[in-house]
Amino acid sequence: MGGTKLSVSRRQRATPYTPRVEALGVTDYSVVNHTILPKGFGRSTAEDYWHLKSAVQLWDVGCQRQVEIRGRDAAWLAQYLTPRDLSAAEAGQCLYAPLIDAGAGMLNDPIILKLAEDRFWLSIADADILLWVRGLAHGLGVDVAIDEPDVWPLAVQGPRAEQLMRETFGDSLQALPFFRFVQVDFDQQPLLIARSGYSLQGGFEIYVDGFERGPAVWDALWSAGRELEIAPGAPNLIERIEGGLLSYGNEMTRDNNPLECNLDRFCRLDGTIDCIGLEALQQIAVTGPQRRIRGLRFDGDPCPPCQHPWPLRVEDRFAGQVTSATWSPRFEQNVALAMLERKYWDEGTEVWIDCGDGGMRRGVVCGLPMEET
Amino acid sequence: MGGTKLSVSRRQRATPYTPRVEALGVTDYSVVNHTILPKGFGRSTAEDYWHLKSAVQLWDVGCQRQVEIRGRDAAWLAQYLTPRDLSAAEAGQCLYAPLIDAGAGMLNDPIILKLAEDRFWLSIADADILLWVRGLAHGLGVDVAIDEPDVWPLAVQGPRAEQLMRETFGDSLQALPFFRFVQVDFDQQPLLIARSGYSLQGGFEIYVDGFERGPAVWDALWSAGRELEIAPGAPNLIERIEGGLLSYGNEMTRDNNPLECNLDRFCRLDGTIDCIGLEALQQIAVTGPQRRIRGLRFDGDPCPPCQHPWPLRVEDRFAGQVTSATWSPRFEQNVALAMLERKYWDEGTEVWIDCGDGGMRRGVVCGLPMEET
Repeated sequence: MGGTKLSVSRRQRATPYTPRVEALGVTDYSVVNHTILPKGFGRSTAEDYWHLKSAVQLWDVGCQRQVEIRGRDAAWLAQYLTPRDLSAAEAGQCLYAPLIDAGAGMLNDPIILKLAEDRFWLSIADADILLWVRGLAHGLGVDVAIDEPDVWPLAVQGPRAEQLMRETFGDSLQALPFFRFVQVDFDQQPLLIARSGYSLQGGFEIYVDGFERGPAVWDALWSAGRELEIAPGAPNLIERIEGGLLSYGNEMTRDNNPLECNLDRFCRLDGTIDCIGLEALQQIAVTGPQRRIRGLRFDGDPCPPCQHPWPLRVEDRFAGQVTSATWSPRFEQNVALAMLERKYWDEGTEVWIDCGDGGMRRGVVCGLPMEET
Repeated sequence: MGGTKLSVSRRQRATPYTPRVEALGVTDYSVVNHTILPKGFGRSTAEDYWHLKSAVQLWDVGCQRQVEIRGRDAAWLAQYLTPRDLSAAEAGQCLYAPLIDAGAGMLNDPIILKLAEDRFWLSIADADILLWVRGLAHGLGVDVAIDEPDVWPLAVQGPRAEQLMRETFGDSLQALPFFRFVQVDFDQQPLLIARSGYSLQGGFEIYVDGFERGPAVWDALWSAGRELEIAPGAPNLIERIEGGLLSYGNEMTRDNNPLECNLDRFCRLDGTIDCIGLEALQQIAVTGPQRRIRGLRFDGDPCPPCQHPWPLRVEDRFAGQVTSATWSPRFEQNVALAMLERKYWDEGTEVWIDCGDGGMRRGVVCGLPMEET
């Protein structure tokens, strides 16, 4: 499936940055939240990886759509959606939060931005959470408005991200702590900027409010970035696997609960909060999850793309499945994220991976993020 | 964006037929409901169009996911989702039905299959209706189970579809009326087949129940189809525009109500049914919709792909937007679907279309389906 073209129509929305990434020679798209996500620019994933770890990249992540919840019951409803305790959250804070259903199945893992006591954005992964939240709110009869605002995130990631942002938006960002956001002025209008992003290289996400403002923000960053070797980029498969960053729809689906996803620390189970799925989650916690996401390193040539889960075996028993995999040029080994059954999830466990065209490979379970051995 | 590759991972699900369409040289994919939809096989859209109108095609439409609603309150909830009156529907019937939200915005336009008095499938277009229905059901506290069953539709479309189906599954299908379904036996297991499909050429949709059964059904049809000049295919842009078949996310979004989509006949507004959005819809019906979907035919060379809405003008006023467009080899003219403002929606109205790279074109509003002039 690697060489097949994406057929584009209005249904796969363009972003304000689409003309920019096309001018820069985008070669690969994915589709997230009915929006195109640029994934490649003609360089190898390894080249993009080394660049991301050494310079700065500008990512069109307009597909990270926002679900805005506002109104009298907004704080109550935001809390009802997630087992993460939001009671101490402050305006200006970003919170990574599992969203679950009544059976504790994962529906999404957004960053929640608390804009005000009665106003939240859920910056979502690939699923129509707007429909879920509207359905719940209507059925429960709570007093909120729920919309998708005209907001188009851009990510600036890499070790030079801080310098680029300061040159573009001023020194005030230097003091911004991780997972906090502020408003800066840009073209006489406020611009919301968070210290966050889908890599472990440091950086920012800019929540550009207004489609028509997008190109000017892109251009300002691009122009200031020339001396910093800026390049267009995208969430990098190698970097995110090594770093243990999860991708909703890949590492987990509705069939998984947050404990299986190692999100225990974001689950308040003592009854002090009221959220959907709490009872189911408490029940799961009694015995503990039956499987968990782990890292995996394995031998042989660079593996093919993992386009569907690869089964894992220990002797003749099902041991789990690989959900994302790639060759790591740093470890000179294949690396993967996998959902491992309880009996096999300990670090150091040896498993056999059926990589399809890539054949059977021997792998070893490891912790996340992955570290030099 | 036309030549950009689709980056595939587990998140874009393969179907049981993916190995078959890859072996047949698929060149273009779209993504619908987090599932890949084959769109092209190296032939032009016009070649596919003439073939669809003269022979028979096999379409991998596994992306038409089902939302199953079953249980004590299933019939009540199914009715609550749509302004279409379901009260007289019989088991074995397919019903095209707009799904709307509290503001009467279109959320989807599935085929509803009534499997039993207390069991329904919604065969959906591109949106996570499962989340919407689960959210509503949880909030309202109704007694239903809501799942995505392991069902992978295949479509058989074209004038020779009937012959192919009879040769493959037997003569009983001859008596099957349009928009009805039956169970036939295949490999000693039941197989649900409907006379329906996303073209005007006649045909069937096969709701293959069980991923692992898919390849055998495909192979049986393919084998029986060799003498009928069977080819792999996909919903055809030319055929569906000429035929006035709507595509959710293209022709309409949450911002449109069903009257704007000409779905008046599927809206029971007299208060005899209870559905979400009814009041909003009744209110809209008082004055009538402010815009409606119409056909449009326009001059000049074959237009470029319509990858975002093209604005329409009459003199200097906004008159609407084109949402899908292509060259029709039959009419030797460009054809389009457009959402036209009330003042400009009459047949014969002349409008100017800003086709982007394709320049300004003069177009004329027409009825749907389009007919020879």
